[in-house]
Amino acid sequence: MSFDDGLASAASAIGTHLETVLADFPDLPVTRAMGYAVAGGKRLRGYLVLEGARLHGVAPERAIWPACAIEAIHAYSLVHDDLPCMDDDDLRRGLPTVHRKWDEATAVLAGDALQTLGFEMVARDACHDDPVVRADLALSLARASGAQGMVLGQALDMAAEQADTPLTLDEITALQAGKTGALICWAAEAGARMARVDLTPLTGYAQRLGLAFQIADDILDVEGDAAQMGKAVGKDADRGKATFVSLLGLDGAKRRAETLVTEACDCLSLYGAEAINLQQAARFVIARRT
Amino acid sequence: MSFDDGLASAASAIGTHLETVLADFPDLPVTRAMGYAVAGGKRLRGYLVLEGARLHGVAPERAIWPACAIEAIHAYSLVHDDLPCMDDDDLRRGLPTVHRKWDEATAVLAGDALQTLGFEMVARDACHDDPVVRADLALSLARASGAQGMVLGQALDMAAEQADTPLTLDEITALQAGKTGALICWAAEAGARMARVDLTPLTGYAQRLGLAFQIADDILDVEGDAAQMGKAVGKDADRGKATFVSLLGLDGAKRRAETLVTEACDCLSLYGAEAINLQQAARFVIARRT
Repeated sequence: MSFDDGLASAASAIGTHLETVLADFPDLPVTRAMGYAVAGGKRLRGYLVLEGARLHGVAPERAIWPACAIEAIHAYSLVHDDLPCMDDDDLRRGLPTVHRKWDEATAVLAGDALQTLGFEMVARDACHDDPVVRADLALSLARASGAQGMVLGQALDMAAEQADTPLTLDEITALQAGKTGALICWAAEAGARMARVDLTPLTGYAQRLGLAFQIADDILDVEGDAAQMGKAVGKDADRGKATFVSLLGLDGAKRRAETLVTEACDCLSLYGAEAINLQQAARFVIARRT
Repeated sequence: MSFDDGLASAASAIGTHLETVLADFPDLPVTRAMGYAVAGGKRLRGYLVLEGARLHGVAPERAIWPACAIEAIHAYSLVHDDLPCMDDDDLRRGLPTVHRKWDEATAVLAGDALQTLGFEMVARDACHDDPVVRADLALSLARASGAQGMVLGQALDMAAEQADTPLTLDEITALQAGKTGALICWAAEAGARMARVDLTPLTGYAQRLGLAFQIADDILDVEGDAAQMGKAVGKDADRGKATFVSLLGLDGAKRRAETLVTEACDCLSLYGAEAINLQQAARFVIARRT
């Protein structure tokens, strides 16, 4: 199976599983908004969970739970990020954002409940036989998404927007390690956590992948096509925000992303040919157009 | 020790523990807002955790974790409820709400991170030796606070505000079982979960306590003093919302709350004199002035 087909197949499995889980919820605007927010997207984070699990012999019917959990947490962060008081975005993946399609109150609540759902899914018995693993997944997911992980990155981003001087390369790297890196890291490590093996190779891979992902995002914000991406582009440059492109130049940013992807792939060398899908995922991250 | 002294002592221990936990977080507006939001309050939910744990011989240095977790989840729900797009409140416990003291973006993020912190605290090793218990606390907390628990109640409340006809007694009872009941239930059951014993007596107690709590809230909204309560009163009546008072009358609501408290206390009879504090907590819920 090609990488693209594998990613599409994982995305389909994740989407179907999330629909099944949400079908148990009462039918209300907030639960419909949850389903809307968690539908679509590339499912890169969920794919990393499924591939990391496969690499360690974890059954896919177990791994689907943390894969859906990380997609629920990611979706919650997007719904809240899009709010008028945050990034004030009208479009996400080419469709109206949740607060535009419903209203702000529904968007706040749907985001809240998607976060909760993420924790529920990793804590369920179906996720893993061993409660040590379920508790470890819940704890690590909380650390990755809270005020020492993703929310920390968002808070640093807000502080940067109000600061007089643009961020340095070290500062923007620290910011992005939280804002986008922490969830990507958790996703790549989850399979090793489920198999209770050493996380180190996956951590090394994921940290470089996460940074490359953000550099690619900054490049897309300059070079990307709004129609193809389904969201506004050029917003960072318009705001005069420091980005990897403003700090490294376009060519420098591309070279840095290439180097990071090569290093990320090298981190998985001990897995041999079995790691090919994760290595292709790293290449995909900097080659994507959306 | 009198009940009031016991509650004050528990509130102090919970406040100190939360400060210690938050001291490990980076110093930013969002983490300061988290500390602000989780400070103060009666700590009734945390008290229920501590007393339920004591009743089952669970060590207080363990029980403090779920006690702080439920207070973090409760605080997150208040921060988001107070937002302009939700209840639009300027005051909470006599102080400016988080979005008034900082801004809406900080309030959204601080609420998000407080929810995450709640899950982190029950999943930590320090909370319980047995990972079965940690995973069970995380799962049950997610079910109590998500779109089948607290958020469901909030969503039903929003739907009711837009409906043409006021809610019936059954509907408002179902709404409140989610909106305020689910977290109170989780708090009262947590000690039994930690001891891995039958939850039934605590569940019976907590369901009646939760409903009595909400009836008392509705009574306070009519009879309470805004200055003493530190928040606006009379808002429900102004909006023409159905409440237990509008449905049962003031005297009927008071009688119903009294009956529920008596029944709640009876649920704990098998615990004998050891349950006196939880029984006094039930009496406190309908006697409180704030």
